Amino acid sequence: VTRIQLEQTRIDKAGHKHFMAKEIAEQPAVLGAVTAFHLAPDGTDLAFPPEVDFSTCDRVTMVACGTGHYATQVAKYWFEQIAGLPCDIDIASEFRYRQPVLSDKGIGIFVSQSGETADTLAALRHVEGKLSRTIGVVNVPTSSIARETDVALPILAGPEISVASTKGFTAQLLVLLLMALKAAQDRGRLDAAQLAAKLADIKVLPGLLAQALDREDDIKTLAAKIAESQHALFLGRGVMFPLALEAALKLKELSYIHAEGYASGELKHGPIALIDKTMPVIVLAPRDALYDKTVSNMQEVMARQGLVVLISDRAGLEEAGKVWAQLAMPTVPELIAPIVYAVPAQLLAYHTALARGTDVDQPRNLAKSVTVE
Amino acid sequence: VTRIQLEQTRIDKAGHKHFMAKEIAEQPAVLGAVTAFHLAPDGTDLAFPPEVDFSTCDRVTMVACGTGHYATQVAKYWFEQIAGLPCDIDIASEFRYRQPVLSDKGIGIFVSQSGETADTLAALRHVEGKLSRTIGVVNVPTSSIARETDVALPILAGPEISVASTKGFTAQLLVLLLMALKAAQDRGRLDAAQLAAKLADIKVLPGLLAQALDREDDIKTLAAKIAESQHALFLGRGVMFPLALEAALKLKELSYIHAEGYASGELKHGPIALIDKTMPVIVLAPRDALYDKTVSNMQEVMARQGLVVLISDRAGLEEAGKVWAQLAMPTVPELIAPIVYAVPAQLLAYHTALARGTDVDQPRNLAKSVTVE
Repeated sequence: VTRIQLEQTRIDKAGHKHFMAKEIAEQPAVLGAVTAFHLAPDGTDLAFPPEVDFSTCDRVTMVACGTGHYATQVAKYWFEQIAGLPCDIDIASEFRYRQPVLSDKGIGIFVSQSGETADTLAALRHVEGKLSRTIGVVNVPTSSIARETDVALPILAGPEISVASTKGFTAQLLVLLLMALKAAQDRGRLDAAQLAAKLADIKVLPGLLAQALDREDDIKTLAAKIAESQHALFLGRGVMFPLALEAALKLKELSYIHAEGYASGELKHGPIALIDKTMPVIVLAPRDALYDKTVSNMQEVMARQGLVVLISDRAGLEEAGKVWAQLAMPTVPELIAPIVYAVPAQLLAYHTALARGTDVDQPRNLAKSVTVE
Repeated sequence: VTRIQLEQTRIDKAGHKHFMAKEIAEQPAVLGAVTAFHLAPDGTDLAFPPEVDFSTCDRVTMVACGTGHYATQVAKYWFEQIAGLPCDIDIASEFRYRQPVLSDKGIGIFVSQSGETADTLAALRHVEGKLSRTIGVVNVPTSSIARETDVALPILAGPEISVASTKGFTAQLLVLLLMALKAAQDRGRLDAAQLAAKLADIKVLPGLLAQALDREDDIKTLAAKIAESQHALFLGRGVMFPLALEAALKLKELSYIHAEGYASGELKHGPIALIDKTMPVIVLAPRDALYDKTVSNMQEVMARQGLVVLISDRAGLEEAGKVWAQLAMPTVPELIAPIVYAVPAQLLAYHTALARGTDVDQPRNLAKSVTVE
């Protein structure tokens, strides 16, 4: 272990009140850098190391903890929908004990910001010799997971000091998305023109993230309302479902509000019993193919007097009509929507924590890197 | 749709205050009947219809909603550990939209008490022609899912009137467990002697469920304490993780307490920030191979003043030492532990609801059978 004295490094808050605020604001630059790094110099093709090759892979197994786990849950949709490649995802602490059935043509992807997460590292060691290849997705290139995987892809987020991961999460998402495109290419599911169209969507990410960051004042107003509650639910469908889980985790970690994420369609199978006129329900619903069904779940909440906060684009907000509160997001290509919608989730948790006076960069009971099981 | 007037049927509460109490109490009899029905008359072999054959199956896909989904989540551990057969499980409302990659050698299992759950039925129709076979696990043999699957296995729970499923859940679990044994047999993973040992464990289920029901007075005392809280967390590892999710759902539905289930190992990746001296944390931890790790997570909660309720057997309680509250369960064969531990989860939700004065059999906002998407 190389110990680095914080004061010796040039890490500072760069004018922000908290590391978290600084790290949220860095996302357009970080995600631009991730795109540039993993694309060929002319920007028209992916440029991964040769080990990142899915042509003979029959199944992807992704293992992570906490926020990284939610990133893999989003990526499962991408690998399956874009590359037609089935994915198993696992919480690292559960992975070993359920005796997973692995394929020797399978590829394992291990996601950890620090690269030292104890359960994820143990899971990596558990699969040794059982998969065709292991890939690390890490922020710290000298970390154990980076060293022990066959190839490690950097997320290039720079030091993440705030305990609650923000730029680490979106950078993980982008690396996983680019890998899903590589898998689609390797499996003959994406020709040059189709790849170019997807890359065009990805290249607008920094601009769209900047637009999402510009909504900070509105989010602050919203946070003041949420801060009065002891509970919240987040709802989403498809890729917005794991994002709802991540948004809830962020609010929990920072504000100590008991927030929980749910697949919109599961609401009526139980949790709707929690809804009364004191329960904020934050709905993540861009105007996409799943929008209508999510809005119908939202209306069930409103029929029970729940306090609906709709986060959507202009078209989505207009179509939904009157809600308790709303947040207008830019119109976003479906491919990158979960990355852009991570920003309001982060800012909402941040400003709610400020409104409640909790310690943003160092929430109670938490450690940045969990190196024990 | 055949409509049956409730008053015309001979369904009554049989001396219980609520249908839920009656249905909880019926579990020893129901699970005895399930075992008898799905075993050969001499009790030494499984007796499923010929379509329940996993010999050429390469993957099981299980789809359900709500409580049924948690039953499949437990069953995934069984199919993988006992039969070495990989499983995908999905929330029905998410299944279609994530464009799952299916194998034509795969078997689909669709779990629904009513057999009419709209999302699960839609998922069943979605896989038509894409899998080698579909199996329904239903309580209502005349239901749509029973008719539209290649073969439907009854859970024999009898009418379940209470909105919150109890005997339906444990009967689903047992049918899924017996099917996992059949899969292990079909795949040459279980010889006659090994099967006999597993069946011996299953045959003690009614007796152990009765012993768990005998803990009702202790659970009532515990419920009085939990009823004062607005929040609760349930923790478990392995098969106890989905049971923690189900226990939280039951408490939510019935008492409107915001309860949430977590994999024990995920606690320190965020939710531990919620822990303070007002947060009950209910730990489901029989003295099994995962006990030590779960107890170590429990100690992290205690170090933050959380109110730990440990549900374990005598050996587990003794080893753990002093906790805020505890509940002694009988010592249970590992194979059937999640079925037996469902009983205290149900009784805790029931008595907490009584203590809070909510409507047990008909919680607010909920319908028994969700026939809309």
